[in-house]
Amino acid sequence: MSLVLKAVENIPLIQKDDDIADIICKNASDIADKDIIVIASTIVSKSLGLTFREADIIPSAEAERIAASNGKDPRFVQAILDESIEVFTETPFMLVRNKNGHVCINAGIDSSNVGGDLLLKLPEKPDNYAESIGKSIEQKTGKKISVIITDTNGRSFKDGQTNVAIGLYNIKPIRQWIGEEDLYGKVLEISEEAVVDEIAGAANLVMGEGGDGVPVVIVRGLDFYTNEKVSIKEMYRDQEKDLVLQGLLKLKEKKIKNDE
Amino acid sequence: MSLVLKAVENIPLIQKDDDIADIICKNASDIADKDIIVIASTIVSKSLGLTFREADIIPSAEAERIAASNGKDPRFVQAILDESIEVFTETPFMLVRNKNGHVCINAGIDSSNVGGDLLLKLPEKPDNYAESIGKSIEQKTGKKISVIITDTNGRSFKDGQTNVAIGLYNIKPIRQWIGEEDLYGKVLEISEEAVVDEIAGAANLVMGEGGDGVPVVIVRGLDFYTNEKVSIKEMYRDQEKDLVLQGLLKLKEKKIKNDE
Repeated sequence: MSLVLKAVENIPLIQKDDDIADIICKNASDIADKDIIVIASTIVSKSLGLTFREADIIPSAEAERIAASNGKDPRFVQAILDESIEVFTETPFMLVRNKNGHVCINAGIDSSNVGGDLLLKLPEKPDNYAESIGKSIEQKTGKKISVIITDTNGRSFKDGQTNVAIGLYNIKPIRQWIGEEDLYGKVLEISEEAVVDEIAGAANLVMGEGGDGVPVVIVRGLDFYTNEKVSIKEMYRDQEKDLVLQGLLKLKEKKIKNDE
Repeated sequence: MSLVLKAVENIPLIQKDDDIADIICKNASDIADKDIIVIASTIVSKSLGLTFREADIIPSAEAERIAASNGKDPRFVQAILDESIEVFTETPFMLVRNKNGHVCINAGIDSSNVGGDLLLKLPEKPDNYAESIGKSIEQKTGKKISVIITDTNGRSFKDGQTNVAIGLYNIKPIRQWIGEEDLYGKVLEISEEAVVDEIAGAANLVMGEGGDGVPVVIVRGLDFYTNEKVSIKEMYRDQEKDLVLQGLLKLKEKKIKNDE
């Protein structure tokens, strides 16, 4: 079995209202059934016009309080709060759950690859954009494809970031091995493979992050196509089962108490 | 740019003292300069004879105490303690730092794909085995290659596991984008890409975990070869900088206090 990842070259700098599906179809040399099209959220956000200026934001008292503890601009903190439904850490970095349920630093607000003094937000409902772009590509090509929208995230215990999935179309987030037999015929007790994050990470190896950045990668050779309705949210762990989040909230509680 | 991952088919079930480099070279159709050879730690452990029987372990009082809280067999708990230098959570699962510095569940002890009632430990110094297997492949093929030894791990916030790197040869764990310019010529403030984990995850898509499991994958198309001395440990975050671990230790402290 072999797997091939191919960068879609010559994608122009994306502007508000650009048709991403159209741009992908014009620049991909060929698209086949079961291809998985991995798209950096940056270009989705740009096409949606999700850029903004820090200078235009008026910080709340809460944003001022957090900014005093972490040394960030209170307006930037406010922008993070505006995109978040829960804040797990305030300092030295802000780890939050964003409106779509994704746990990440700074609610995914980014200043790289945007231009000028602009900041860029994540799309609010990435599954929806994965679906609309995917459907449009299917219409233009007549092929059955899947889409993964990605973002770059840090992780616990280890330095460095990896690309992860934040929006899906026609691909389930997890491959279940539960109940299947292992090499010796023993039934695997539990094994759930987060394939969409592995695919997102693989695509990042081809994407790059510098000036030679490529925001679209086509992944061929996997049999993960489904026409069932899917959502990235299926993969987000229930908060009451997440010891890490409970531990972080405990630390935050203690810190706020000490500061008072 | 394109990236190709190819399963090395027909790897036999590995036994103690098997020569993994020899088996890879005999079954890989071709190996080229700069290829990255991804090897599941399971077969490295098997070749080292790191299987053991739970029944042969005598649990300590500490193992009995933890087993009473998490419902696991005290002998299995003892096996985890034997492989760990620190325990971050005791229940419902044991998250530990193993002797090599890797933070993982159950110290990576596994019962899948081993056979009978045997359990399998992770190799104690995976960098060393990556190096010895890599050097042997280089000698047999005359090519300059890199090696990544992998294990499957869960993660914070999200269900599902991904394959990650636990031992390296001739490849740096992190690709630095710091100081490089973005698409608009703005200098990237900080961006460290954990490429070895992205490669490990990508390889897992080809490996599978069931009875059709393939433990060796060749990755071609990346320019990550280095002949500098490398170690996976470069990527392990200092514990005092890791809020997640601090939060987990705080929870554990509170739990033990409550139980007393």
